[in-house]
Amino acid sequence: MEDSIFLSKRDLPARWYNIQADLAKPVPPALHPGTGKPATAEDFSLIFPDPLIEQEVSTQRWIDIPEEVKNIYSLWRPTPLIRARKLEKFLNTPARIFYKDESVSAAGSHKPNTAVPQAYYNKISGTRRLTTETGAGQWGCALAFASNFFGLECEVYMVRVSYDQKPYRRSLMHIWNAKVFPSPSKQTACGRALLEKDPDCPGSLGMAISEAVEEAVANADTKYALGSVLNHVLMHQTVVGLETRRQLESIGAKPDIMIGCVGGGSNFGGFIFPFVFGPENEKRDIRFIATEPTACPTLTKGPYRYDFGDTAKMTPLIKMFTLGHNFVPPCIHAGGLRYHGMAPLVSYLQNEGIIEPRSYGQNSVFEAALTFARTEGRIPAPETSHAIRAAIDEAIRCREEKQEKNIVLNFSGHGFFDLASYDKYLAGQLDDYEYPEDRIQESLRELPEVGE
Amino acid sequence: MEDSIFLSKRDLPARWYNIQADLAKPVPPALHPGTGKPATAEDFSLIFPDPLIEQEVSTQRWIDIPEEVKNIYSLWRPTPLIRARKLEKFLNTPARIFYKDESVSAAGSHKPNTAVPQAYYNKISGTRRLTTETGAGQWGCALAFASNFFGLECEVYMVRVSYDQKPYRRSLMHIWNAKVFPSPSKQTACGRALLEKDPDCPGSLGMAISEAVEEAVANADTKYALGSVLNHVLMHQTVVGLETRRQLESIGAKPDIMIGCVGGGSNFGGFIFPFVFGPENEKRDIRFIATEPTACPTLTKGPYRYDFGDTAKMTPLIKMFTLGHNFVPPCIHAGGLRYHGMAPLVSYLQNEGIIEPRSYGQNSVFEAALTFARTEGRIPAPETSHAIRAAIDEAIRCREEKQEKNIVLNFSGHGFFDLASYDKYLAGQLDDYEYPEDRIQESLRELPEVGE
Repeated sequence: MEDSIFLSKRDLPARWYNIQADLAKPVPPALHPGTGKPATAEDFSLIFPDPLIEQEVSTQRWIDIPEEVKNIYSLWRPTPLIRARKLEKFLNTPARIFYKDESVSAAGSHKPNTAVPQAYYNKISGTRRLTTETGAGQWGCALAFASNFFGLECEVYMVRVSYDQKPYRRSLMHIWNAKVFPSPSKQTACGRALLEKDPDCPGSLGMAISEAVEEAVANADTKYALGSVLNHVLMHQTVVGLETRRQLESIGAKPDIMIGCVGGGSNFGGFIFPFVFGPENEKRDIRFIATEPTACPTLTKGPYRYDFGDTAKMTPLIKMFTLGHNFVPPCIHAGGLRYHGMAPLVSYLQNEGIIEPRSYGQNSVFEAALTFARTEGRIPAPETSHAIRAAIDEAIRCREEKQEKNIVLNFSGHGFFDLASYDKYLAGQLDDYEYPEDRIQESLRELPEVGE
Repeated sequence: MEDSIFLSKRDLPARWYNIQADLAKPVPPALHPGTGKPATAEDFSLIFPDPLIEQEVSTQRWIDIPEEVKNIYSLWRPTPLIRARKLEKFLNTPARIFYKDESVSAAGSHKPNTAVPQAYYNKISGTRRLTTETGAGQWGCALAFASNFFGLECEVYMVRVSYDQKPYRRSLMHIWNAKVFPSPSKQTACGRALLEKDPDCPGSLGMAISEAVEEAVANADTKYALGSVLNHVLMHQTVVGLETRRQLESIGAKPDIMIGCVGGGSNFGGFIFPFVFGPENEKRDIRFIATEPTACPTLTKGPYRYDFGDTAKMTPLIKMFTLGHNFVPPCIHAGGLRYHGMAPLVSYLQNEGIIEPRSYGQNSVFEAALTFARTEGRIPAPETSHAIRAAIDEAIRCREEKQEKNIVLNFSGHGFFDLASYDKYLAGQLDDYEYPEDRIQESLRELPEVGE
């Protein structure tokens, strides 16, 4: 058996998989932030182009990937699925560990899988400019990368703590022609209001979303692009799971455990959705583990409620696991996992008991990252390392229980822009934030009382 | 025709190609630094293990790649050969541009191709510790990566200007368990002497080599590893050219122009050697373009002379194009190209008129890098961007002359650790060092008078 499973360009998926077609009951609808009534296509059309709004609510099982999108996907897709044999040996485990290497895209993560179609659908819908938020910078880089291909202007609101911690992600966005502002910024009314309240505000994804949405609403030629959470975003990411399925089939292997980290939920969702239901819609016998930081324990500690996607209450209300739209997580290095909410589709599966959430502190996550880097050679992003932590734990359990499981994880991004975090870990300077109980309770008191 | 040409793991070359077998006359021998007489295997054995010394002087055409080396190669090899169709379109050229993507290794460049076999042969020869120098950090990262796999200690002397400019390459070496010192350092006698002369000395590859060699000579369990220049290093790099040949054959294409950047010459040599001679040892009808910085114009301005590989005159004397072992190039951002000499094998081909050297200033190189990043998406290393500059120039010439040439370049490494340089370029702050005539003339006066 070859240890790196490559697919040919001919095996690039022709269609995205829409899990909404296979759910026993529909996902609860998004609600208008003002009225609390189900949001209409018109409500969304201020910030999204029509084709994406259609995809958001579609229950069609398969949706064709446009040629223009496949053309750009093919710059780095299909991505390899790699057997982590040196890690297995180090752990002395009978388990087989595979990782789907999404770090090989030019932007360094899975994010271009949705940035490219979002830029494409905006382009054909007449959008001139896209705005977005970014946490660690992965998503901002991906949208800059994608917008550049379609000649769209791109404005990125980057959470201030990451803007300061990761200057080179900014450089990358500049190379691809994007404008980057630290958020909260003085560019927008809500940014200015936040800065007035706290001039040293470290920012959060929720705040940055508010700024990007405000800009899109205020300008007719400008739309907004979100890098996670929404149904169409997770659907675009199913190229990851669809390729993984074909790769495992090509070696006659079935996954027993699939693992992904969750911030908004898109890399995890796109990875597992094609595996959740069998041909007769029966649930498959696979454990799906979603890993998150103890500093932002949305799935492990939050309730399943309607909440805003952003701090300024500009987005529709969505039913999700949430820590409350005012929750500002501690400044951990996995900036991409600092989101208060969770994708409605992932939340739905969690509520149905289909997935297992698990949370980890920073130090145990970086310990796993080092183990991976020193056995397999690759440097994982801090976000990705949450998934690696769980994979290592499961592989150790397999050793103890003498079980030959197939563990498959989504290697969502590389850590080349996170080496300052590694330095801190190696110097023993990383804080291991515990579950911030007080902050969460305070934030949860402000959940809106709608749609329950 | 697919635009990305992948090979299967089964197509990983089984043997390295040794161009010494096909040269009309032998490469001039290395000379002992003290006596000026041809160096013996014993002279080399202080710093290199026997299997590498044998490879250095071998005239056997094919040398088997050990299983243990192939096993690690297969973590990222074969690497893809990619048609740069978006760049072609942007340039409106009838030429086809292909790039061999060596940036996909975990260390981010072609350097692990030789780091892995060097670590392997040292391991089986009983070496406990390896020392080396590094310029931009690509080679130091590669040797750290390789040493870690074989449980060897690794000590890296990093040219001070790069140590300061590129802190994250240091982090990467630390992650892979290496020790890193800025060179000149206080670790060695020659480092201390250099610091005494100039406490602010920016360092050079020549100085860092002296330090690493001193450490190896002084300790019986320690050997030295060089990332370029030597015959065995270039031979290990022929995996790049051998794969490229198979990839081009698989689509029925022949290269008309092949381009690589040259510092010590290893990525260029490994890329072109398998293409230089035909089955009957006739020279093939391909143009081979070697690109270097105007700030360090070894091939374009240096003489073909015996010289030391390092500043402190500790290495054997080798016949090569050189700017003199005391030449300290301006601190350009392509740190990997700041070497005063050139591989004897590349120098030989240059002297025979088989290759075309060409030099570029920093700004035109970064302009090419930006063009590549904005069309193909990938961020090239500044070193690699010298090759891209030439490829773009040749593609434009093809447009003007209406010629459908196949241009193939070696994409030797990514620029994720060089984004500060991109920032400077975008801010218009890059110096365009001209050929430093005075410094070179001064340095050339100190060439040793031997072996002529």
